[in-house]
Amino acid sequence: MVDVTGKPPTARRAVARCLLVVGESTRRDLIADASRPGGELLAAARTAGQMAGKRTADLLPLCHPLLLGDITVDFSIVSQGILVVAGVDALDRTGVEMEALTTCTVAALTIYAAYKSADPTMVVTDATVLEKSGGRSGSWRLTSAGVVVNNPVDGSV
Amino acid sequence: MVDVTGKPPTARRAVARCLLVVGESTRRDLIADASRPGGELLAAARTAGQMAGKRTADLLPLCHPLLLGDITVDFSIVSQGILVVAGVDALDRTGVEMEALTTCTVAALTIYAAYKSADPTMVVTDATVLEKSGGRSGSWRLTSAGVVVNNPVDGSV
Amino acid sequence: MVDVTGKPPTARRAVARCLLVVGESTRRDLIADASRPGGELLAAARTAGQMAGKRTADLLPLCHPLLLGDITVDFSIVSQGILVVAGVDALDRTGVEMEALTTCTVAALTIYAAYKSADPTMVVTDATVLEKSGGRSGSWRLTSAGVVVNNPVDGSV
Amino acid sequence: MVDVTGKPPTARRAVARCLLVVGESTRRDLIADASRPGGELLAAARTAGQMAGKRTADLLPLCHPLLLGDITVDFSIVSQGILVVAGVDALDRTGVEMEALTTCTVAALTIYAAYKSADPTMVVTDATVLEKSGGRSGSWRLTSAGVVVNNPVDGSV
Amino acid sequence: MVDVTGKPPTARRAVARCLLVVGESTRRDLIADASRPGGELLAAARTAGQMAGKRTADLLPLCHPLLLGDITVDFSIVSQGILVVAGVDALDRTGVEMEALTTCTVAALTIYAAYKSADPTMVVTDATVLEKSGGRSGSWRLTSAGVVVNNPVDGSV
Amino acid sequence: MVDVTGKPPTARRAVARCLLVVGESTRRDLIADASRPGGELLAAARTAGQMAGKRTADLLPLCHPLLLGDITVDFSIVSQGILVVAGVDALDRTGVEMEALTTCTVAALTIYAAYKSADPTMVVTDATVLEKSGGRSGSWRLTSAGVVVNNPVDGSV
Repeated sequence: MVDVTGKPPTARRAVARCLLVVGESTRRDLIADASRPGGELLAAARTAGQMAGKRTADLLPLCHPLLLGDITVDFSIVSQGILVVAGVDALDRTGVEMEALTTCTVAALTIYAAYKSADPTMVVTDATVLEKSGGRSGSWRLTSAGVVVNNPVDGSV
Repeated sequence: MVDVTGKPPTARRAVARCLLVVGESTRRDLIADASRPGGELLAAARTAGQMAGKRTADLLPLCHPLLLGDITVDFSIVSQGILVVAGVDALDRTGVEMEALTTCTVAALTIYAAYKSADPTMVVTDATVLEKSGGRSGSWRLTSAGVVVNNPVDGSV
Repeated sequence: MVDVTGKPPTARRAVARCLLVVGESTRRDLIADASRPGGELLAAARTAGQMAGKRTADLLPLCHPLLLGDITVDFSIVSQGILVVAGVDALDRTGVEMEALTTCTVAALTIYAAYKSADPTMVVTDATVLEKSGGRSGSWRLTSAGVVVNNPVDGSV
Repeated sequence: MVDVTGKPPTARRAVARCLLVVGESTRRDLIADASRPGGELLAAARTAGQMAGKRTADLLPLCHPLLLGDITVDFSIVSQGILVVAGVDALDRTGVEMEALTTCTVAALTIYAAYKSADPTMVVTDATVLEKSGGRSGSWRLTSAGVVVNNPVDGSV
Repeated sequence: MVDVTGKPPTARRAVARCLLVVGESTRRDLIADASRPGGELLAAARTAGQMAGKRTADLLPLCHPLLLGDITVDFSIVSQGILVVAGVDALDRTGVEMEALTTCTVAALTIYAAYKSADPTMVVTDATVLEKSGGRSGSWRLTSAGVVVNNPVDGSV
Repeated sequence: MVDVTGKPPTARRAVARCLLVVGESTRRDLIADASRPGGELLAAARTAGQMAGKRTADLLPLCHPLLLGDITVDFSIVSQGILVVAGVDALDRTGVEMEALTTCTVAALTIYAAYKSADPTMVVTDATVLEKSGGRSGSWRLTSAGVVVNNPVDGSV
């Protein structure tokens, strides 16, 4: 663990995403689940992702317990499968990138679990941090050209 | 959850892998960590992966509590980064694919957490099940041509 | 804890329910949530209930870790609010009444959390076991006249 | 989850209660447990309730991790059974009603677990928030006439 | 982890103990707590120990999830402080020594937490396994002369 | 629990240690583990200790959830076995002695688990707080003559 005891709490935000690549039949099922009343798989995946995000410090040895303020999970069905984007906000002493990555990964694995027998070649891929703000390193955003620093912060902790 | 109450326990095995794509400097650090006494990051990642694998039913809503018999985690440093392969064995009523996926994913995220500031464009990718044995669907193994069923089981549950 | 070491595993089932009494506006919201695509509160409540049910031995000191086979959660919107019925199955050495009660109670509290500010006089009530089968005491079912033993088991453990 | 990132921490307090309705023999046992040295069921129930209260954010998807300052659990044996009252204090960004409800409910379920075979018609009932203070909505207290706002807070967050 | 997948479940038992060395005033308090109605510290310590024992596989990386059948915790106030003895039974594939050690250690730390300010020189000492039965290595019991094998088992797993 | 709601957060630090007494063969193994690349037992023990330290409030009923800033674990192989020293830092309302004790104890039990069959007379001993700073009682340090108050704090909370 990095010692964060002396760091002041600041507003932190991170967005991470991953892509669950699925077969065509699974993809149709996910579209149906998302569009009918009582379709619950995506809701269960969102809930599981949020609960795992809150438990990140319990899963990853280097992470600190944080006062998370919000966790969102958004799904988009794309041509290859389903994109999972997690946003995490906290007022705390360290960044929330790992919370966002844990959230979207566990949400994707929840969907994987539902189709593991019917569609055994699914893949969770492209799990990465898309943007981050707050803290010493300032804000940045991932672009196709790599990381872009938008807002360097002078003299901050 | 799929009701597994009436299914007899059989020997189950699953192997899953993921690849953590890292920058060149991180890759050199991981090689150094793996080759010096007291290099502990990979050991911490293995431990975190195993502990998460044991807690899969606590993370994924559709998964059942299982009597896991063993969890292994192997790392290989490859040209793009580090490959994480998790093997899980159990004598139980349902497959252990999700336990293997959870294990290798959390191991990869543990390494991610160590370099999140220095190497912010890392990606966890290609998380998938490589092989599975036990249970109704018999054994299969992922090949470059897709799933190959090696050992269909007649009439089993 | 009651020592269950020597007891043979048998098929166990328990059904429990509770009623969340809500105000009229909350009740209308719950009906809307249940009937529109993307209505997610009941799905989140079901997921939270199932995850808590799997963790019953971690919450209640007297309960044993069990090999749960299935947990279901059903909601019915009634005149006073929403009825939550949880069914739990296991092949194990002890009954699953507490798992069913924990599941339905946590599902109800999840809904409570969503409306705690808007509808502060909600009440969780009538949390009880409706039926139970398996084990020494045989099967019984709660009726308006009290417990009815349907199927006493002679000489079983 | 409601985003609480920007809310300032304030002193929060909530009191919740539930009633475990038990049979006459169970009620006599509880009186005996409470009044003899080494009577431990109520102590175990208090401990389990407090531990569950600390874990509320881990059980209920919409709840945030909080810096709880204190959790109390009080039992009163009444004519119908045993009344469980939980008080929770925190200096944090959101109310602690769900923590108080989780605490008293799990304490009641711990007692339920001890008598589930001998007294299978027990019921957990009347689980509700009795009073709340701190935060935007000010203080209120449940009366037989419904919620009474004691101390509205103007312009607070 | 040692792979226990192929091992048959057998009846396992382990007893472990530790000694919490306390000052004279703390010792008097513990005697009072144990002997008055409503004295709850030892009950809370027992509950915490049992709950930690059930969670051993979640705390210790090398331990397997087990179907624990019973956990007991006994306290004896001795001249130096308080002796904590934990007994664990399971029908499973591996021994329960670590579950017994975790149980008694956490019970002792629970008492430590209550007096950490008033009696800061307390020590938890002599935490060890007293006896073990079941499994390949047969039964043994710790004596002042070291381990005594009582009941070697020929050819067992 | 002691109510800490009104206490201001201050920088807290505690150091605790325990000694795992092992046989000569185990001691040689630990030296080898510590000195070769890929020797992982001590790394796993450190990780397990840190993760348990973060979960102290989940294990010990009287402990509060804390915003831990850092947890370190150091091992020294001594003539009798292996000494485990844990240091914990936090900016919070209450001391972190129990977090330090939980960390070093669980680290020692992790090593114990690895040798429980080969070296069944191991003992965890001398688990105590070595030093503490922050909070009302000021700083102190354990010496062979007992507790020495280094830095009494006047009038602080």
